[in-house]
Amino acid sequence: MGAGDMGTALVTPLAHNNHQVRLWGTERDGLIIEALRAGNAHPRLGISIPADVRTFTFEERAEAFHEAEVVVVAITSDSVRAVLSRLAPLPGVLQVVVTVAKGFDAGPAGNDVQLLPDTIAEFITAPVVAVGGPSKANEVARGLPTAVVFGSLDAAAIEFAREVFATPRYRIEPTDDIAGLEVAAAMKNAYAIALGVADGLEQRTGLPHHNLRAALFPRAVTEMGVLACAAGGRAETVFGLAGTGDLQVTITSGRNRLLGERIGRGDSPTDAVQALASGGTTVEGYRAADFGYRCYRQAVDAAILAEGELPLLDALWRVLYCDAEPAAAFWDAV
Amino acid sequence: MGAGDMGTALVTPLAHNNHQVRLWGTERDGLIIEALRAGNAHPRLGISIPADVRTFTFEERAEAFHEAEVVVVAITSDSVRAVLSRLAPLPGVLQVVVTVAKGFDAGPAGNDVQLLPDTIAEFITAPVVAVGGPSKANEVARGLPTAVVFGSLDAAAIEFAREVFATPRYRIEPTDDIAGLEVAAAMKNAYAIALGVADGLEQRTGLPHHNLRAALFPRAVTEMGVLACAAGGRAETVFGLAGTGDLQVTITSGRNRLLGERIGRGDSPTDAVQALASGGTTVEGYRAADFGYRCYRQAVDAAILAEGELPLLDALWRVLYCDAEPAAAFWDAV
Repeated sequence: MGAGDMGTALVTPLAHNNHQVRLWGTERDGLIIEALRAGNAHPRLGISIPADVRTFTFEERAEAFHEAEVVVVAITSDSVRAVLSRLAPLPGVLQVVVTVAKGFDAGPAGNDVQLLPDTIAEFITAPVVAVGGPSKANEVARGLPTAVVFGSLDAAAIEFAREVFATPRYRIEPTDDIAGLEVAAAMKNAYAIALGVADGLEQRTGLPHHNLRAALFPRAVTEMGVLACAAGGRAETVFGLAGTGDLQVTITSGRNRLLGERIGRGDSPTDAVQALASGGTTVEGYRAADFGYRCYRQAVDAAILAEGELPLLDALWRVLYCDAEPAAAFWDAV
Repeated sequence: MGAGDMGTALVTPLAHNNHQVRLWGTERDGLIIEALRAGNAHPRLGISIPADVRTFTFEERAEAFHEAEVVVVAITSDSVRAVLSRLAPLPGVLQVVVTVAKGFDAGPAGNDVQLLPDTIAEFITAPVVAVGGPSKANEVARGLPTAVVFGSLDAAAIEFAREVFATPRYRIEPTDDIAGLEVAAAMKNAYAIALGVADGLEQRTGLPHHNLRAALFPRAVTEMGVLACAAGGRAETVFGLAGTGDLQVTITSGRNRLLGERIGRGDSPTDAVQALASGGTTVEGYRAADFGYRCYRQAVDAAILAEGELPLLDALWRVLYCDAEPAAAFWDAV
């Protein structure tokens, strides 16, 4: 479900395991499906898919999901509700839903904060397995070593999904801490913006800010751990592949880091988000920072967290939404 | 004590606080002292020091340390014993010794494993404060934001040192977990070699290995936490600036990462170490990996740790000292 980078990349381990794989594109993915059908490489990933993988356009959705046993949700987090509401109900043989879409959703009324597996569960009754951990799509697509975390409260669902996906180059660690996994998966994008600011400060001043970035890194991990616990999860999940590992790869490249870099260079956050969004891709961390901040405020109101417990998230929210000066705000949050 | 990069860099916060600062070079630092006295920039750091900082050559040691209240040990870890044995005893007004030399020493007989603060304490009776955390010297020298950890069992000594060193751009977090701090400070250099191998694999294959590097990162932090606990320290120290933060900056640049990169490219570890050492600087992580591995084996023998509890350290040791194939060894350790 989704022929973007990660949806297409996961064809590689699935094809390795000799599954019958179908790749369905959303309305945004028309040109991708066209390219793949013509035998060309995926326009962004630069790889071709095996010849026996069938591709489906948005309109061919009935055929695409007919008697599917596993569905992979691989669409951007802000589209999940809209796409699933048009697809549901999915046919009855579905064993498990694996989601690489990560993070938060605004709920049915559009003004709430909930985790995406809960949104998926509104539309699909099969158990949901969430995927976290450091996993750049271009490397998964090429079969390069990748270690991820599959999370669900349903141990049998994880085991089923693991048998489907795991290969010698795509390792899967199970966890029942779905809250910790999802908080880390969403918030690492937000915190990557803050760390990216250090790169932008280097460009603006001509002086490296590696010590600042490195000081913000454990602070970000600690705060993701606090948020995970507030959401009913465990900090240890965040200290592993799902948090520390994923944050490490996210600050190496990607649009979230790039948004931070632009802000550090001196761009206004609004301009920087618009410039990056003009390519058609959402900077997921921008929304996640707001969702995360609202969770934080709710947790303070409910006396689950103390005021001031998440200084970096507070600074990030003020930088992104209240034009706080980033260099001072982030240094004060270390 | 030591006019290398970090010894010289710490002149910046000390001068900011209007201390009378003396910079003493070891026998290796002759050309540096000469350059600074001529009013030139430090040859490696590229910065000049304030005019009122007095410089001393190795031979002028009596004058350099006369009535010193604070001594900063800023020499490479493998020289600490030799240098201190020639300097001791230091004069009697010394309040505190601050060490940025990190890691392990082979003990008086040369075949043991001990932490450097214990070595320093063999020669100097003043309390020792160890410095950890992400701290690139060129940024400290330029007064760029840097957050470090000062560790000692002696809270008054930390507070004294903090008053001497802390500035608005050089923040100091105190800890009494000297064991956790020292294990992290030493072992982050060793683990940075392992993570650097991913960079070398990218160069050898032309394909990025970011997922592998990111998967190794939390494993390295976890193992440093296990080693810290085995040494009587706390994992939380490792999860903060001293471990996660310092490892993050260490895999960004530096000789340890570079050693890993060369090994990943296909160089033999012995050749790579020799090539890097020919410039006169030790790759501290190479020795630290061996010291850390010996601590691990001792802890297993004493039933403090279980066999197999530190797979990445085990893999690193086999790669560095037994020519194990690095790509497979590290991927198996994730």
